[in-house]
Amino acid sequence: MKYIEDRSSVINPLADYQDLLKSKKKLRVKLGVDPTAPDVTLGWYAILRALRKFQEYGHTAVLILGEFTAQVGDPSGKSETRSVLEENEIDINAKGVLPIIKSILHSDNLEIVSNKEWLSKLTISEMMNLASSTTLAQMLEREDFSKRYDSKNPISLLEFFYPLFQGYDSVAVKADIEIGGNDQLWNLMLGREIQKFYNISPQVAITFPLLVGTDGKKKMSQSLNNYISVTESANNIYGKIMSIPDEVMWDYFLMLSDLELDEIEETRSLVADEKMNPFDVKKSLGKIITNELYDETLSTQAEQSFNDITINKNIPDVIPDAYISDGEVHLPNLLTENDITSSNSEARRIIASGGFKIDNVKYIELDISAAQLDGKILQIGKRKFLRINKK
Amino acid sequence: MKYIEDRSSVINPLADYQDLLKSKKKLRVKLGVDPTAPDVTLGWYAILRALRKFQEYGHTAVLILGEFTAQVGDPSGKSETRSVLEENEIDINAKGVLPIIKSILHSDNLEIVSNKEWLSKLTISEMMNLASSTTLAQMLEREDFSKRYDSKNPISLLEFFYPLFQGYDSVAVKADIEIGGNDQLWNLMLGREIQKFYNISPQVAITFPLLVGTDGKKKMSQSLNNYISVTESANNIYGKIMSIPDEVMWDYFLMLSDLELDEIEETRSLVADEKMNPFDVKKSLGKIITNELYDETLSTQAEQSFNDITINKNIPDVIPDAYISDGEVHLPNLLTENDITSSNSEARRIIASGGFKIDNVKYIELDISAAQLDGKILQIGKRKFLRINKK
Repeated sequence: MKYIEDRSSVINPLADYQDLLKSKKKLRVKLGVDPTAPDVTLGWYAILRALRKFQEYGHTAVLILGEFTAQVGDPSGKSETRSVLEENEIDINAKGVLPIIKSILHSDNLEIVSNKEWLSKLTISEMMNLASSTTLAQMLEREDFSKRYDSKNPISLLEFFYPLFQGYDSVAVKADIEIGGNDQLWNLMLGREIQKFYNISPQVAITFPLLVGTDGKKKMSQSLNNYISVTESANNIYGKIMSIPDEVMWDYFLMLSDLELDEIEETRSLVADEKMNPFDVKKSLGKIITNELYDETLSTQAEQSFNDITINKNIPDVIPDAYISDGEVHLPNLLTENDITSSNSEARRIIASGGFKIDNVKYIELDISAAQLDGKILQIGKRKFLRINKK
Repeated sequence: MKYIEDRSSVINPLADYQDLLKSKKKLRVKLGVDPTAPDVTLGWYAILRALRKFQEYGHTAVLILGEFTAQVGDPSGKSETRSVLEENEIDINAKGVLPIIKSILHSDNLEIVSNKEWLSKLTISEMMNLASSTTLAQMLEREDFSKRYDSKNPISLLEFFYPLFQGYDSVAVKADIEIGGNDQLWNLMLGREIQKFYNISPQVAITFPLLVGTDGKKKMSQSLNNYISVTESANNIYGKIMSIPDEVMWDYFLMLSDLELDEIEETRSLVADEKMNPFDVKKSLGKIITNELYDETLSTQAEQSFNDITINKNIPDVIPDAYISDGEVHLPNLLTENDITSSNSEARRIIASGGFKIDNVKYIELDISAAQLDGKILQIGKRKFLRINKK
């Protein structure tokens, strides 16, 4: 499984992984996805893509829809207690993401199950048994917990349930392998211990790099609004890929393309030695991703559209994003709220004087529907730009 | 409630206690007893006696039989994870202790409930809600937990359930006051916080000194075999009271008699100044306790019997205890196993030569039934004694 071995950050324990391969059996590869948000980001897609590779290698993808665990919330990497999600919110999210996930994975070699099925039925005695599998010291080996404890940030006892539940999922589906982002390694290794507690053959943990969001700094996340959704238009995805800082694009190549590792490395050296323009490299990345998510025609159109409105017109690489809700948009409000104009009256003057463009086309009305604005680039005067996204 | 105010070590918060008194309402006073052992010790009796005082002051005694919590085991004051009790063992213990407890408390102003009733029915969501009431930092404020954590002794996550469950009991019975031994203070105060979490008026915690066992060192406990059971004969109780070290008897006076505090203090000073013989003081303690548990006649008999076989015959104050099982006892074995004789043949020689007595009566057979030995004092030669107890 070259793709997996090349791209993963950790395979633990490696010896067990090699034994699994030698066994020639059809492996059960688990991925847990909590419907805590309504969309599928490129970050999730990167891991789902790895899961799809396992399917292509002939193994079974076991996708756990974490409808039960979403209520608790994974405290991994968090510095404070999460707010608990309402059941109906989770329900809406699950209904939203499930068809997208199904469209990403192959329908053969696929099991999709909700962990509600077993977790909501746990009796108090079974829960007590599960809790007895793990010690406080094991929990506090997790860096985010121990940091929070040391810095006196409160940790609710409920938060310990999350990794226990995630481990119990591995028991319920008899996972041979569990995959996840690098922040999941501890949870995955605990799942292994919990499987042992229940006398089940322990899983191998395989983790992958986490994609950084469009801000170039933090993990891509729907709550940070620094994400690219797989359901956005090819134009939008292409444009947003072009807006990520150069230095983070290499992980995108790693996790979102099938390019060989040495090919990626070579390009990286050429860019470092200024023998290649990073802007062109990023364009090839945008092309690869939109081509995979849509098709050749739409990815070529996306590239063309990007060229038309940016390169040809000297629009800068990085354009700030603005987010709008459905319905009618009052443009002076939008521009002032996003610090493009200093007041609504200034905005009205500029629009009236013909200094306002939508995707390079002059626009002189003060109102417009959100649908007409979505995905467009607004230009005010010569140097101010804004990319519009519907919430 | 002078008895309570005089004898308790802690009333917390005192202001809330005073408010409860001012309210003139009939208070619900909770005491939890886990059926983790088959007998009721004088240590338990001391607290049950305090609960009975509340009944006499006109309040309701709410006795929680901890049939559910006994499965988890209270980690209070423990230095390692407890072994988990089997349900049928708990059942047998509960059936054993319940009639004894009922005979100690008044039947008016009494509610006895098993916490199985609500805890065994907790759903996983309710358990999650309960766990969210408390933080890790609160748990680790408890000294035994933090000590164990610091010294890297494993703490199972299950152990955190115990104080949560005990607190939930206070919610279930709407306790105004919870009483316990001094090692319970932290649990009782957490119960207060958990009641607040469930929007219930928070209880006042009242704790009392823990009686030290017959070894004079450790808390009286059935697992340490240093206990006096309330179901033992008046003779046995009297004899065992006489065997406790002088310095621990003052807490026995405090918790097992109605003597006024200044009377106890005065006696204590007289003993300290060697104006009173502690042996005589301890005899009055034995008399008070057996009189309360039995009656005037039996306590006088117990005193007389003690005088007959000890004082009159120069038997020492402190006699080592030996424990026997039901059935036939081979005396040479018993004596050798308890280091009274160095071998069975030595024991046989002494018995045959008439140097062996049971309650001061010569005995020359080598075997005897356990029933005939129970509660008796064996004498071998002039200076070696052994008090027999049936297991």
